[in-house]
Amino acid sequence: MEVKEALKNRRTVRLYQQKNVPDSDLAEMIDAARVTSCASNLQQLRYIVIRDSKLVKEIFPLTAWANLVRPSRTPESGISAPRCFIAVIASASANQVIYADAGAAIQSMQLMAWSKGLGCCWLGSIQRDKLKILFELPDDKQVLYLVAVGYPAEKPVAEDVPDGKSVFYYLDEQKCLHIPKIRLEDVATWR
Amino acid sequence: MEVKEALKNRRTVRLYQQKNVPDSDLAEMIDAARVTSCASNLQQLRYIVIRDSKLVKEIFPLTAWANLVRPSRTPESGISAPRCFIAVIASASANQVIYADAGAAIQSMQLMAWSKGLGCCWLGSIQRDKLKILFELPDDKQVLYLVAVGYPAEKPVAEDVPDGKSVFYYLDEQKCLHIPKIRLEDVATWR
Repeated sequence: MEVKEALKNRRTVRLYQQKNVPDSDLAEMIDAARVTSCASNLQQLRYIVIRDSKLVKEIFPLTAWANLVRPSRTPESGISAPRCFIAVIASASANQVIYADAGAAIQSMQLMAWSKGLGCCWLGSIQRDKLKILFELPDDKQVLYLVAVGYPAEKPVAEDVPDGKSVFYYLDEQKCLHIPKIRLEDVATWR
Repeated sequence: MEVKEALKNRRTVRLYQQKNVPDSDLAEMIDAARVTSCASNLQQLRYIVIRDSKLVKEIFPLTAWANLVRPSRTPESGISAPRCFIAVIASASANQVIYADAGAAIQSMQLMAWSKGLGCCWLGSIQRDKLKILFELPDDKQVLYLVAVGYPAEKPVAEDVPDGKSVFYYLDEQKCLHIPKIRLEDVATWR
């Protein structure tokens, strides 16, 4: 898949087919993350790839999905839930720089996934304390983010809106998720 | 260019040809950034694209480059300096979430640039107070990051290293920049 196509068409996916993701695809996602730009090349992020169905089921209730359209885009265990999570691990005292590193690494993972027909949901609303126990992380580490990965069972669409209009995503009558994005001319100034 | 190729081969570029970047390519970079995943789809980042040569020259001394190999990868004005910067603008009270959003958006820009034969340098070591004055930003805004953009005049190479080995980038005898990246098996745990 072309870079431009992936950057333009990739959308967050919250409903998944009940089909396992090949380990080789997951490895390529991590491989993309690890060579992504990071501050001073320090590479402070680590990754836990979870496919074990028992562990995935334990993680699932510790995640919150798409607050604005709840419950429609909260996947259901065994029906539309992801079969895989990637946990992004950082120092417990992570600063802003680590968050920027994580954002870049996660975007690399999402694009690699999309190019393979996979969808992701970058989850920030997670119960970090419980996840830390579940993963038996040492005191000085934390789960910064989770990324759900799976084969999409929905096709969300983006639509351009002028700045100032609502950017709240919404479901239409066909239960398709619409994601308003502020149009190009309103986010950029040229000098 | 294929997604996988861009994700694998893209490297930070710090020496540039003295050739202008087409506005259409810069617009596509911003377009990629604006549709990138962001927390709750709030889209709080804005962009200033600077190609005006006077303004670019004023920005340049407010940036610091590749501390570890200074001065070799500090570009020289009129010889190897970028002809263009993109400033990423956020609220002056930006929190960790905004930094994560910025990281993802900047990675999208970098990949779009790379697919067009352009190189970028994501600059975090910048004089934010002076840039704020230069761009006449209101009190409640700040320059979170700068991204330099241009046609590469160097070909940095990544190399895999085991975890625990130095990740400091270095120049070899041919003045080629090497970027050690921690190997895949050392950054990921599989469950």
